[in-house]
Amino acid sequence: MSQFATEEYGNPSSSHHYGQQAAKAIKEARAYFADIYKVSPDQIIFTGSGSEADNLAIYGVAMDALIKQKANPGSPPPRILTTAIEHAAVRKTVQSLAPFGIEVHFVPVDENAQVNRDRFLELLTPNTVLVSIQQVNNIVGSQLPVEDLAKLAKQKVPTLIFHTDAVQAFCKVKQPTASSEIDLVSVSAHKIQGPKGVGALIVLNKKLLKQGIRPLIWGGEQEGGFRSGTQSPGLISGFHIAAKSCLEKIEATRNQISSLRDRFRTLLTEKSLLSGPKSKVRWNSPSDAVPHIVSLSVPGYPSGPLAKLLEERGCLVSTGSACSSHKMEPDPVLSSMGLPPEISQSAIRISFSSENTPQDVDTLAQALDESIRLMTDLLGGRGR
Amino acid sequence: MSQFATEEYGNPSSSHHYGQQAAKAIKEARAYFADIYKVSPDQIIFTGSGSEADNLAIYGVAMDALIKQKANPGSPPPRILTTAIEHAAVRKTVQSLAPFGIEVHFVPVDENAQVNRDRFLELLTPNTVLVSIQQVNNIVGSQLPVEDLAKLAKQKVPTLIFHTDAVQAFCKVKQPTASSEIDLVSVSAHKIQGPKGVGALIVLNKKLLKQGIRPLIWGGEQEGGFRSGTQSPGLISGFHIAAKSCLEKIEATRNQISSLRDRFRTLLTEKSLLSGPKSKVRWNSPSDAVPHIVSLSVPGYPSGPLAKLLEERGCLVSTGSACSSHKMEPDPVLSSMGLPPEISQSAIRISFSSENTPQDVDTLAQALDESIRLMTDLLGGRGR
Repeated sequence: MSQFATEEYGNPSSSHHYGQQAAKAIKEARAYFADIYKVSPDQIIFTGSGSEADNLAIYGVAMDALIKQKANPGSPPPRILTTAIEHAAVRKTVQSLAPFGIEVHFVPVDENAQVNRDRFLELLTPNTVLVSIQQVNNIVGSQLPVEDLAKLAKQKVPTLIFHTDAVQAFCKVKQPTASSEIDLVSVSAHKIQGPKGVGALIVLNKKLLKQGIRPLIWGGEQEGGFRSGTQSPGLISGFHIAAKSCLEKIEATRNQISSLRDRFRTLLTEKSLLSGPKSKVRWNSPSDAVPHIVSLSVPGYPSGPLAKLLEERGCLVSTGSACSSHKMEPDPVLSSMGLPPEISQSAIRISFSSENTPQDVDTLAQALDESIRLMTDLLGGRGR
Repeated sequence: MSQFATEEYGNPSSSHHYGQQAAKAIKEARAYFADIYKVSPDQIIFTGSGSEADNLAIYGVAMDALIKQKANPGSPPPRILTTAIEHAAVRKTVQSLAPFGIEVHFVPVDENAQVNRDRFLELLTPNTVLVSIQQVNNIVGSQLPVEDLAKLAKQKVPTLIFHTDAVQAFCKVKQPTASSEIDLVSVSAHKIQGPKGVGALIVLNKKLLKQGIRPLIWGGEQEGGFRSGTQSPGLISGFHIAAKSCLEKIEATRNQISSLRDRFRTLLTEKSLLSGPKSKVRWNSPSDAVPHIVSLSVPGYPSGPLAKLLEERGCLVSTGSACSSHKMEPDPVLSSMGLPPEISQSAIRISFSSENTPQDVDTLAQALDESIRLMTDLLGGRGR
């Protein structure tokens, strides 16, 4: 990345040597991702974030459908289905389409953060143009069977487009490829130790390059016309290298992280935190969750102060709340799973990475135990 | 930027120490730009490019107007005015709104790339919701009197929103501030020697933070909810430092570049390239153009090979053509100025920066002279 900031700083759209040098790095990255997804290079659209990739998929399909509806007066309004547990980049984006008259439905999930199939089938009407379902949930780590759900959806409505937000899944679980019923996949670099500021939308269904999806950002027609704006060869190369580095050791990392997660769970059990009469902690992640995401609640103890106490003990966790623009908003995932407010408001999310060691896990278990004791003393029994 | 890639890599939305460290860098950058434009920090929206800033302004206003129209059946369709010489990020974005029933009009320009005011006034109807006019043209460098045009427009239609694409103007000419009739300003980092992958939309009219413009990218509600997606503290800091470095020496740079441009023109005159019976070169930039952009044509000689010959002589110029996705498309600016195809198809754009020296200009003038002689020999009189 440094090289592209200081030496090879050409604009990849320029035809001169510096430009072509920059374009070459992007071409190599595009070929790498095309190879992973078994598609041609023009099916990789680099964006400025995973959120932008999600928005390109959703607005791209929705606006195309809206224009078609306008051209055919009397045709029913387009319908979009998504789940109640999507990341805000899908959830709020889909919701934002309602004022255009688009029918927006959030399919409910069960206590394991899995789609309610009966309700899903009911909501799949012939005017459904898009279904967007995440591959891995970002709060509890549940793995959604997107391949099956896409097949199911297309059996009922063959014309619909199926998008999956794979931001939390890429480099962790198997990715759909060109032969899949899934049409569009969003990924992001900074969730795989790459740079912030770059993501991609993978167009698995090549037909969509011709019709069915409109650009989100218009202009100089970079990225096959789907995402205008001067590309950053540094960011795109950074994404390329991060993906390569992750995928080369994906099996080893999965085993390593599974064993860290299991060690953590064992330690909490040993400390009588997870079960027994004095247990304080609820393990929110379902049993088949990916190992790198663990959601825990300490019911009755607010997550913010708990995260602060853990940080003082060297452990950085997130509070499972979208905390943007200083408005604290409890994340809807846990309540959608049917969990009561005392659980969702006390949830923390722990992320394990290949950089973590068993000692880190010991530190975390110890820190959690200490922090809960401290809070119990402070709250004087007001906590559960 | 390196520091944020290797050490301070927290997510600026995270509440822990690493996150807050990253958030601080963004806060400082935001305060810096707010100070330049005499607005409050929440009026600075960082984006992933200048193109995205343009799209946020245009789609943001257009989609808001479209929803209002839908809520008021029988109301006239929204109208958007722009000029025939905008950058593609404005031109194609405005054009893309036509299928939604939005009335899209391109105001013609004269031979100096200035807006035809009579036609502009005629096109300003009460249903006009947005006017988008660039501050400096990116191909010929003409300076458009956007302050005057905004006043004129609002005298006739007080409710409209006025946007200016200042990507080529920022750090070169005086920027509008909060007291201006201009409401929205787009800028980009990589045009001021900053990083690729970051731009900003400056909301000069604070009322627009409450209503009148919708987000382009939805999700985690970063950037006051107007641009979701994890921000890159490195890119935003890079933009901050680039702007600071440019603005500190803006007067000196302007004088330096004016003198480079004048030297170049003098040299071409001395070589009898610009006037006289054997003159080959047409100087396309109007006399009041900014000094850093010069458009030249060598009528009858295609711009691509000419640029290649100049590159072989150490001079990198652009061909004045948007050359994206390998489709050569002559830029509409020169033809909009009334110039015939033999001039627009042979145009090259020369950009002078503070890194250039008088010796560079001598090299360029010499290279241009040599290249034209060579092409004349090769074309055997088929060129003019």
